Amino acid sequence: MPVISQKGLAMPQSPIRKLVPFAEKAKSRGIAIHHLNIGQPDIKTPKGAIDAVRNTDLQVLEYSHSAGFQSYRNKLAAYYQKHGIEVGSEDIIISTGGSEALLFAMGSVTDPGDEIIIPEPFYANYNGFATASGVKVVPVISTLDEGFALPPISDFEKLITGKTKAIVICNPGNPTGYLYSQEEIRQLAELVKKHDLFLIADEVYREFAYDGLKHHSIMAERDIDDHAIMIDSVSKRFSMCGARIGCIVSRNKELMATAMKFAQARLSPPTLAQIAAEAALDTPQTYFDEVIAEYVSRRNTLVSGLEKIPGVKVAKPKGAFYCIAELPVKNADAFAQWLLESFDYNGKTIMVAPAAGFYSSDGVGLNQVRIAYVLEEKALKEAIEILAVALQQYKD
Amino acid sequence: MPVISQKGLAMPQSPIRKLVPFAEKAKSRGIAIHHLNIGQPDIKTPKGAIDAVRNTDLQVLEYSHSAGFQSYRNKLAAYYQKHGIEVGSEDIIISTGGSEALLFAMGSVTDPGDEIIIPEPFYANYNGFATASGVKVVPVISTLDEGFALPPISDFEKLITGKTKAIVICNPGNPTGYLYSQEEIRQLAELVKKHDLFLIADEVYREFAYDGLKHHSIMAERDIDDHAIMIDSVSKRFSMCGARIGCIVSRNKELMATAMKFAQARLSPPTLAQIAAEAALDTPQTYFDEVIAEYVSRRNTLVSGLEKIPGVKVAKPKGAFYCIAELPVKNADAFAQWLLESFDYNGKTIMVAPAAGFYSSDGVGLNQVRIAYVLEEKALKEAIEILAVALQQYKD
Repeated sequence: MPVISQKGLAMPQSPIRKLVPFAEKAKSRGIAIHHLNIGQPDIKTPKGAIDAVRNTDLQVLEYSHSAGFQSYRNKLAAYYQKHGIEVGSEDIIISTGGSEALLFAMGSVTDPGDEIIIPEPFYANYNGFATASGVKVVPVISTLDEGFALPPISDFEKLITGKTKAIVICNPGNPTGYLYSQEEIRQLAELVKKHDLFLIADEVYREFAYDGLKHHSIMAERDIDDHAIMIDSVSKRFSMCGARIGCIVSRNKELMATAMKFAQARLSPPTLAQIAAEAALDTPQTYFDEVIAEYVSRRNTLVSGLEKIPGVKVAKPKGAFYCIAELPVKNADAFAQWLLESFDYNGKTIMVAPAAGFYSSDGVGLNQVRIAYVLEEKALKEAIEILAVALQQYKD
Repeated sequence: MPVISQKGLAMPQSPIRKLVPFAEKAKSRGIAIHHLNIGQPDIKTPKGAIDAVRNTDLQVLEYSHSAGFQSYRNKLAAYYQKHGIEVGSEDIIISTGGSEALLFAMGSVTDPGDEIIIPEPFYANYNGFATASGVKVVPVISTLDEGFALPPISDFEKLITGKTKAIVICNPGNPTGYLYSQEEIRQLAELVKKHDLFLIADEVYREFAYDGLKHHSIMAERDIDDHAIMIDSVSKRFSMCGARIGCIVSRNKELMATAMKFAQARLSPPTLAQIAAEAALDTPQTYFDEVIAEYVSRRNTLVSGLEKIPGVKVAKPKGAFYCIAELPVKNADAFAQWLLESFDYNGKTIMVAPAAGFYSSDGVGLNQVRIAYVLEEKALKEAIEILAVALQQYKD
């Protein structure tokens, strides 16, 4: 029997994956599940994006340029410029989702054995991409008590070694919903300049900033042009996760020439989805206004509901559509399984993502869960009620 | 200035890439170029595939399952069964092109520093995926004089070390057009069993077998179920390169569970393209009969035309739509550049892919080019005439 790679064995499972069989069993017992565990929005994709594909007159579904269609890159550059990010199409490579953009970035700046520093909790798949690249994730802990604000810069500096190549942030944050202030972005800019590191910012939730707060892109800090790598995606912005269209954006010419070699090896990003993504850029502002009003309303419902449950602590998200909640349980993983395996309230239960999978440090976040507010408000209210009842019944 | 990774610096450029600026300059001088350098077929995509997307009633462009839509995997398994490959949907993970399937396979079976053996000349991007994975490609040379047949098994055995994890073949071959016989596939099966290696077969050109010859999949060798990994793609089969839909197929459960972790990290393959790919499976056999008749006719035109040019040697391809031709020049790279920079015949020239980029050994294949016969016959004839005139004029 030939052997599997060490890397393959080390690849992490999704934090939700082991709950899936329990969810399936619950469904087979006739129990309905509110899914608070997923990042798939229920919001409709802009009609213009889908219509562009429906109206295509393509006869041969050809490769696009490895960097993506020039027309799409031009329009995307204009979009960024409108949002205060001065880039040209030559600073953009279209990728297959934000995922591939992260792989290109990691491949371009790290070698096996190198280290990247990431404030935790962080998007669990960063671990997967790091493992696939043979790179070590060095976590710097942000806490619920501080609302998941940027940890002190001195905490980062303690962790920087000769092997550190980059700092990775997600802004607004999945799973925290935290939105970094301009001051925090400045601190990171000074840090990467001082230590000659790359700053990789996953900004796929950029539009989802609430309460009148403004998103600050690392690309607006013009003194770190050679350090800044922005990761973006249409998945959440236009509720088109299945398109698999993202991009890597940087003004560092050498970095982009390197990323381009990775892009050429895989030939091109998906053609049909680029047609949809290009058309999506014509989506009127009213679409976002409505979507954001909807998320703010859901967030308020969720946070005020959670705060009423005894023993539950939550950091009010300022962006994205996730929050981390601390529960009065010892082990949220066991609780999440129990919710599916042994509990129901009037034939219904909930599925949550145990937060330990979003931490790289062992033993941290064990009593936390990530809740995505991608359900409509009525379902969300019912889900909170179910959580409250479950916590009353649960003995751990 | 932060530093680029060693891996990034080592990533190979496409063999054609450095010719692109010369092609652009030629076009700006008003010279028309016949592109013999590309693998993008001019054949129409089956109408049913494009219509399936045109008729979609999707409202939310959601993620699919990380392994791809179950309906597509079921239908694909039935397709393979029809072609004598007994697999179930659980043996298939849908990938973003054959490219991603290769990355999943390499990640699952190799760690940095490991080795894979590949008969050369081989598809140049294998080098890119190996470099990205930190893996060393060990070439075993196949020759034009032997028609690019499988090198003797003893040549492979000389190269196997403790670090060898897999043998990779492309069948039918890009860039050689060679189709392995059942006997050759059997020899490889015995080899990987004896040395406990994986056998990764890129079979994306499976349908393109000519002269009544039959394609033999490694998946039909049932004594290597734990060794065999098939890479496939809809790109060439249905002339839908831009879909970016491929798959990895294996009956080795541990291998598939590992590949699935890589698949989960990147969430899902493209949704729209899966809709097209699923519909493409209903394409009638007449489509392939016509396409294959067209390619056979083009191949015959190309090969007989090349054989008439003094000093040109060619191995008649048995499959795919490429061939390697040896030219009476010292350096095909310089000749390819000269064709674009300093030559035209009645305002026209040709672009070819220097074959050195398809070899991993230094100094091999320097006088060879890869010619893709993806042009219609009239253009192909003209291209051959241009090559003949160019070779008369060229002094090296």
